[in-house]
Order: sequence, then structure tokens, then C-alpha cells
Amino acid sequence: MTEHSLWRFSRALHRAINDRQYEDLQGLIDEDVDWAVYGPIDMFPFFGARHGKAAVLEVIRQVAENVRVHRFDRESIMLGVDSASSMMRYSLTALDSNKPISLRLAQFAQFRAGRLSSIRILVDTFDLVEQALGRPIHLPRIAS
Amino acid sequence: MTEHSLWRFSRALHRAINDRQYEDLQGLIDEDVDWAVYGPIDMFPFFGARHGKAAVLEVIRQVAENVRVHRFDRESIMLGVDSASSMMRYSLTALDSNKPISLRLAQFAQFRAGRLSSIRILVDTFDLVEQALGRPIHLPRIAS
Repeated sequence: MTEHSLWRFSRALHRAINDRQYEDLQGLIDEDVDWAVYGPIDMFPFFGARHGKAAVLEVIRQVAENVRVHRFDRESIMLGVDSASSMMRYSLTALDSNKPISLRLAQFAQFRAGRLSSIRILVDTFDLVEQALGRPIHLPRIAS
Repeated sequence: MTEHSLWRFSRALHRAINDRQYEDLQGLIDEDVDWAVYGPIDMFPFFGARHGKAAVLEVIRQVAENVRVHRFDRESIMLGVDSASSMMRYSLTALDSNKPISLRLAQFAQFRAGRLSSIRILVDTFDLVEQALGRPIHLPRIAS
């Protein structure tokens, strides 16, 4: 039984972010990949949509320049033949401020011939923004 | 082939929220259910964790008092034997202000004997907070 594409991709991605080693990752991304991280791109320029392998490698380089991954826990996971979804909790450090950031995200990925062909990532963005600002944003109570 | 538990649960949930008809939903929730919606509970008291069927039905009633669902699109979905995950986009109306709200969320659900036994829901919370406030929150550019 071969290893699921998710595990290979995940290892290569974390190696790229923490060690800036991109060789493994390059072979695991489809030329025609669709990539989207939903969130405020004004604050985090590496959020948003990217299309194609070069654009995705470039945005992963930007992520690597901004954060270091300390640990991650998969809270939920589903694996299909060529697909995977997971909800994850990351402990990061923001490299410019040296601040710890704790982040929950959900990802839905598709693979083609073992390479990432599509991924959508949803982040608990309000929590992230407050941590990046270093202060709470005052919110009114909206709902009854 | 029987229908996946997700479809039954989803229909009953939307019927509960829009029509305040809870009969179908009551039979589709495990007594021992674990429920979590990640987000700012100060602003949205119906976010957060709930345990047990009574608490979950109560929080769904609170949601029904606050929003109406106009449409939803499943952008990604994975189905297992007793599990399901999806990324969804909702068009809602906030009932107090009559404001339209567009919301992206990801959910990971588990079922036991056809009843919901666990669900975790992640929301693009920053986008939601801005829509609920009715104005953008000014953000500095954090990353390089």
C-alpha cells in the first residue's frame, strides 16, 4: 500500500516552510494547481488565490519568510483516493515580531498523479488578526 | 443504497433554522453529541462548544432566531461511511438588521447510527465580523 499523497505533500510543505528546502515540494505540485487561502489579504499578502505551480511556490516562499511552524495537530481528517480534508491546529512563530501564533484551519485538497492539483484553506481569521495585532478588537454583542 | 446521514441532517438543520420545525432534527442528533463552532462568542453567543442533545437543540434555536438561510453551495465535500466534511458558502440574512451576510465555513461531522455524534465548524470569522459590524476594520500590513 502506497503512502497517501497528503502525507508526502504535508512533509514537503513543512520542510519548505521551516527549512526553506523546496526540492521535495516542487515535484509534488501540479503545473496547473489551483490554490486559495481565504482571509484578509490587506493584512496578510500571502493569503488569497494563486494559479499554477510557479505562483504557488512563490507564495509558499512568502509564508516561509513570515512564519515558522512549531507543531501542528490534526483534529479531524478524511482521506479519499485522490483527495483529503483536515481540520488542524498550528502553533507558529511570526518571524518579524517573534510572537507566538496559534491558528486553526481547515483544508480541502485534491491530488492528480500524486501531485497537488487543488487546495482551499479556511482560517479562523478573526482569532488570527487579533493575535497578529497583539490586542483584542472590541466587538459589540450582535445576536440576541 | 441508503442516503448518507449528512443529507438527512442537512435538510433537517435548514428546516429547523428557516421554518423553526425541529421534529426531524430531534431524531438525528445523538444524546451525547459534541458540537463546536469556532469564533468570537462575545459577539455571537451561539458560537462556541456545546455538549449533549438538549444544548445543541437550544443553540440551533438561537441560530434560527438570528439568521435565515437563503442559499448554500457546497464547494468541497468528502463522505465517509459515518463521517462527512465540507466547505460551504452560505447566503444569510441577519434577522435583527435585515442585512445580507455571506459566509464561508468548513465542517467535519461524525455520525453514529445515523445520528450526529460530533461536529466542528470553522468560519471565516474576520469576514463575518466585518459584515456584522457593517464596516471594515482597519488592518495594518503585517507580513513582508
